[in-house]
Amino acid sequence: MESRRRRAIEIARQAGADALLAADPATVTWLTGYAADIETGPSPFAHAPLALLEAGAAPVLIVSEDEADAAAAGGCEVATYPGFGLGPIDPLGGAARVLSGLVAGAMIATEGGALAAALAAGLRTAEVGPDLARARAVKDDDEIDLIRSALALCDAGQRAVRRHAQPGMTEIALWALVRTAIEHEAGERVPVLADLVTGPRTAGVGGAPGERVLDEGDLVLCDLVPRRFGYWGDSCATFAVGEPSADARSRHRAAADALQRAIEAVRPGVVAGDLDTLARTGLEYPHHTGHGLGTTWHEEPRIVPGSTTVLEPGMVIALEPGSYGGDEGVRVEQVVLVTDGGCEVLSGHELAL
Amino acid sequence: MESRRRRAIEIARQAGADALLAADPATVTWLTGYAADIETGPSPFAHAPLALLEAGAAPVLIVSEDEADAAAAGGCEVATYPGFGLGPIDPLGGAARVLSGLVAGAMIATEGGALAAALAAGLRTAEVGPDLARARAVKDDDEIDLIRSALALCDAGQRAVRRHAQPGMTEIALWALVRTAIEHEAGERVPVLADLVTGPRTAGVGGAPGERVLDEGDLVLCDLVPRRFGYWGDSCATFAVGEPSADARSRHRAAADALQRAIEAVRPGVVAGDLDTLARTGLEYPHHTGHGLGTTWHEEPRIVPGSTTVLEPGMVIALEPGSYGGDEGVRVEQVVLVTDGGCEVLSGHELAL
Repeated sequence: MESRRRRAIEIARQAGADALLAADPATVTWLTGYAADIETGPSPFAHAPLALLEAGAAPVLIVSEDEADAAAAGGCEVATYPGFGLGPIDPLGGAARVLSGLVAGAMIATEGGALAAALAAGLRTAEVGPDLARARAVKDDDEIDLIRSALALCDAGQRAVRRHAQPGMTEIALWALVRTAIEHEAGERVPVLADLVTGPRTAGVGGAPGERVLDEGDLVLCDLVPRRFGYWGDSCATFAVGEPSADARSRHRAAADALQRAIEAVRPGVVAGDLDTLARTGLEYPHHTGHGLGTTWHEEPRIVPGSTTVLEPGMVIALEPGSYGGDEGVRVEQVVLVTDGGCEVLSGHELAL
Repeated sequence: MESRRRRAIEIARQAGADALLAADPATVTWLTGYAADIETGPSPFAHAPLALLEAGAAPVLIVSEDEADAAAAGGCEVATYPGFGLGPIDPLGGAARVLSGLVAGAMIATEGGALAAALAAGLRTAEVGPDLARARAVKDDDEIDLIRSALALCDAGQRAVRRHAQPGMTEIALWALVRTAIEHEAGERVPVLADLVTGPRTAGVGGAPGERVLDEGDLVLCDLVPRRFGYWGDSCATFAVGEPSADARSRHRAAADALQRAIEAVRPGVVAGDLDTLARTGLEYPHHTGHGLGTTWHEEPRIVPGSTTVLEPGMVIALEPGSYGGDEGVRVEQVVLVTDGGCEVLSGHELAL
């Protein structure tokens, strides 16, 4: 974690500030390890967590009292304001008081797209949000371990969807079994972003599970993106319930070949836009070829047409070419770590049709 | 919805502004009906939705293109910026451009605890966040229907937890069955805040389901808070798996009596702090007696010691006295609507031990 904290402080310095106030929850997790609850939206009892980082010191997390233990678990200092209780609720006022006591007139580098206007008022700030977002693309070793942990949840979910999918069940019933498998693997509730579509819905690239009933021969497209310890995993597979159509076989072969081609090409120095072109050759899909992931589920390096981003060791990339048309669609996805000599596939789920 | 829009504009006018820029997602939903996805945290492809309201006009929702259809479904105007796509991702810049085109130098009432500093820069603003939060306490009829819809999900979940709880299963396995029942009832994924604790964990008031294994005679405390169409429901029951202890019976009787006492006392003109005192008589619990709910899961009127808030028709209140101690705890909760002559219980779930 020291490596990314040093890089973050250097970004602040280049913006003319001695300290960094992280306000984007993804940056807070990146610098501190603390990942606030997200599944039920903003809490009435807490402002979004903030992290103040100065050179040579552990970050100070500004959180509600309710979050103090979880926030301190990563070794950070914690400065709190009252949370859940019987008195008046004013997390914004609480966070503002703590913050003003900590920064006292200094020039602060921050993320103005995430910092609340009421907290920014009275601070002297410099904008570093886009720089921090780019800096998050190269992972430290401890981050790679956390992504592996999230990918283990993906693998559990992908096993479950294949085990349970059968004609006559609804997508939402299948989804419940998939989520159950993920949370059993985690031993606790975890946030999960997911596409789970079946039959003709697969032609539409993605979507949430609904009340459609699976039929014999349907494709099932399942893209699972769970968060574990603040880091996201990602995975997609498409398979048939029963016998796939010739069209589905052809699309699956093309997508799987494109994925393999891209994986074989990944190495330091490769330009993201070139990797996109390589994967897309002979295929048409209306989305990116891939993207980074970490404390967000979509970040640099984005593998999209024209991107000039150059791959570096330590980047983690989800690659997910697809083929959609007529009344079916296929996508396959694996996550890779860029290594000195190429890449390592971190995903462990089945890709077969 | 016209009633609350008129109240919101009046709040803006009293702050010296002709228009209101809602930035708190709860206020955006309240004014427009649009509830953005929340289960997986901030989206890399969209800034949080904003709503600009001027007198006599429908609100204008500022959202990404991906959200346009869902946002327009409530009858609002929609102003969009690019979302998910192959080009550079800059939802903050997109939202800023749309916003500056709409407000053009006017004085704007807004919520500085939620509006991003980067969007507030250059605007002339007046703070109305706390006023809007208070105004949300009195519900329009369409909001009450939406809360009923969310409470139907609570009822389904509470039926499921009683049906499925048995010795030998883990809390997280029980939770999966409860969530499945809720999502089957909804026909789609929904966000759910929940306490699900068993055995000695019930003494700790609440908590997320974990890997504890249920034992014969255990209490199960299940507090379910799902969101449906942007509005939250709330419900709690505590029951025994097998034969409850004498202590559990006593605690349950005391909590159920307190709930009944509070419900019988609810009517317009009652002071929230007095209602709290009435419910708490002879009982000790370390939390509020109750709270409003709507587009957030905890809002005014808070039923807490000393509150001077006066109940009004149209307020919706979750009442949830409890009794915790030794190695067991009990809480029972129902949601009521304050009517002209008293209140109507909106919850339909079983409360028996």
